[in-house]
Amino acid sequence: MMRKKIKPAFKLWFQIGDNYVFGEGVYELLGQIQEKESISAAAKATGMSYRYAWALIKEAEKHLGESIVKTQKGGKHGGKSEMTSTGLSLVNNYKRLKEAMIKACEIE
Amino acid sequence: MMRKKIKPAFKLWFQIGDNYVFGEGVYELLGQIQEKESISAAAKATGMSYRYAWALIKEAEKHLGESIVKTQKGGKHGGKSEMTSTGLSLVNNYKRLKEAMIKACEIE
Repeated sequence: MMRKKIKPAFKLWFQIGDNYVFGEGVYELLGQIQEKESISAAAKATGMSYRYAWALIKEAEKHLGESIVKTQKGGKHGGKSEMTSTGLSLVNNYKRLKEAMIKACEIE
Repeated sequence: MMRKKIKPAFKLWFQIGDNYVFGEGVYELLGQIQEKESISAAAKATGMSYRYAWALIKEAEKHLGESIVKTQKGGKHGGKSEMTSTGLSLVNNYKRLKEAMIKACEIE
């Protein structure tokens, strides 16, 4: 059709009303938290500062009115962080939708 | 799942390499050009200035290396503008993809 190679691209996010709540950044961060059980290790893996990663989580939680990450205090290796069921649910929904959109782009 | 009402949202565009080429703005503008056969009427209908609409078209054409709108000069009512086959093809592809993404969001 076109002489030059045109490719579709998209950005996906979740919102409540008009407020941005959850997008690619938090999605990647939560995926890493699930894997590494540590917010600082997850931040490092996604190239974010700990401060930025923490703010991203808190901002999402503020809009949601629910926690998406929980951290157990203490223990042998310090606090272990993991997703709450709300966090997991958001990650799974985002992943499913993202995959459906990638698939739609590939058919294109 | 979540207590608050979370809704997916997305932004879709076409790119060549890393260059943004065609998105919602040009899509809406071309749709109006098809209907009104006039760039200025189309700009008005989409709430753009004529200058902005024109720049949007030219920017897309620059990256594509092809025209997306053609204007016949003269005639009883001045120049009549319409999409080229490249413009039409982009509009149709964008529309199909956008609809597929909306559908994916609705299943969500």
